[in-house]
Amino acid sequence: MKEDDWIAAIRKWTAARPAAALVAGIGDDCAILRPRRGEDLLITTDFLIEGVHFRRPRSSSYLAGWRALARGLSDIAAMGGRARFALLSLALPPWAGRAWVRGFYQGLQDLGRQFGVRIIGGDLTRAATLAADIVAVGAVPSGRALRRAGARPGDLIFVSGPLGRAAAAGYRDLPVPRLALAAKLLGKATACIDLSDGLAIDLHRLCRDSGVAAALDGILPSAPGATLDQALGGGEDYELLCTLPPHRKPPQGLVRVGVIVPGPAGKMTFGRIRLRPAGWDPLR
Amino acid sequence: MKEDDWIAAIRKWTAARPAAALVAGIGDDCAILRPRRGEDLLITTDFLIEGVHFRRPRSSSYLAGWRALARGLSDIAAMGGRARFALLSLALPPWAGRAWVRGFYQGLQDLGRQFGVRIIGGDLTRAATLAADIVAVGAVPSGRALRRAGARPGDLIFVSGPLGRAAAAGYRDLPVPRLALAAKLLGKATACIDLSDGLAIDLHRLCRDSGVAAALDGILPSAPGATLDQALGGGEDYELLCTLPPHRKPPQGLVRVGVIVPGPAGKMTFGRIRLRPAGWDPLR
Repeated sequence: MKEDDWIAAIRKWTAARPAAALVAGIGDDCAILRPRRGEDLLITTDFLIEGVHFRRPRSSSYLAGWRALARGLSDIAAMGGRARFALLSLALPPWAGRAWVRGFYQGLQDLGRQFGVRIIGGDLTRAATLAADIVAVGAVPSGRALRRAGARPGDLIFVSGPLGRAAAAGYRDLPVPRLALAAKLLGKATACIDLSDGLAIDLHRLCRDSGVAAALDGILPSAPGATLDQALGGGEDYELLCTLPPHRKPPQGLVRVGVIVPGPAGKMTFGRIRLRPAGWDPLR
Repeated sequence: MKEDDWIAAIRKWTAARPAAALVAGIGDDCAILRPRRGEDLLITTDFLIEGVHFRRPRSSSYLAGWRALARGLSDIAAMGGRARFALLSLALPPWAGRAWVRGFYQGLQDLGRQFGVRIIGGDLTRAATLAADIVAVGAVPSGRALRRAGARPGDLIFVSGPLGRAAAAGYRDLPVPRLALAAKLLGKATACIDLSDGLAIDLHRLCRDSGVAAALDGILPSAPGATLDQALGGGEDYELLCTLPPHRKPPQGLVRVGVIVPGPAGKMTFGRIRLRPAGWDPLR
């Protein structure tokens, strides 16, 4: 197909009732958003690369599309935001024809529909290997976004679900980003990050940016069949990791895993043993 | 380098005075923007793919970075917007080390600085071939964005500069998107698109979306050394193509190339001969 034929097909696949705050979606040089008063906008991009984030014979295109959007929406959840829009840039190799792309958009749309996310633009080109870049746009009440840098000694550390689930499932699960929980953390959590690369690296990042250390209890909620390595560093679970002051009642769904302590920024212990910040790193 | 080391380096390379309307840039799960009242936001994504948009031995990384951002900013110009922010997703093959990435960011920043564009986020991963996805974010007074669909019979057709320049230069030029001119077209132009794929295909798109036909005069402003094919379909010139009612005085810098006529949507003639909508198509 020619570029304009692809765009017409994608426009049809992504058609929906016009979302509030969207002036124009796919079909012009840019999408146009009309921000609501009193809201900050959140924006994040995430690559999905053939051979790195998925392998062609192992992954269906539906799964790849779902997981591509899940990564972006999880970043919105990590800031306490509501998901609003997504843009998708797709670089297609010769093997990826209309059926593959259709399946990819189906996975993406099935997840997006759960949260009212509308696809409003993107880019299309060819390439030797498949690359998909998801741009996710969300919103949060002005000045209220959850950041990584707010954890203080004495805060308790929580995760939103079992760890190592994706790794134990061979990364073939359909993760649902914790957007519903994220809204309940606004104004309560002192810091938040999503577990995209694994607890051991993402907790390190939160502590490093907050200038604090962490003591994990030594007991983690783990997914059935997950090893300790997978629970600590499997990545792609898309659970939330957050900190709350000790007097705060945690919203339902959070499981305590440790406590923030004074100490060198980013230092972590697990059951009193030093824990290194290892995990999924796409650049190693 | 590890992902977190890359992010620290990129943060340093892109450091600048905090831009108005930016709450948080690189370093958290999302960037946070605080929209200004009375403004719509424009958002667009553009891929730059090794072997499709640039070839490694022929292109310096500085050139690739400059051109990657130019494509995004030109889309903002096409809507009459001001450029504000950019996010860059980079998938790096083994050959692209720190020096290559540094050069890429230098090219990108040197262009961005001309328009006060700040790099506020992105993603980093590895890949077999290099892929860069630029997200450009701009702003336009609410409801005033220039669209493709507003051209009416009788409107005159203009371009903002010589055509075929990029093709004649072997796509090694450093194009400057027409953002300054775009601001002057707000409230005057009835339709606008940027010439990223070539006059013959981009004019067709503007006419198709406006439901009109176009008669080109048969005389085009062309770059020194450019062939007719290059002027009509070379692509990547990043000039603006716009229509103005006949009574409107065109802002300085516009050159008349034809007139909008009634007829089948998207039909074009060039010196009275039928012109086909051919041009750069990354999917063929």
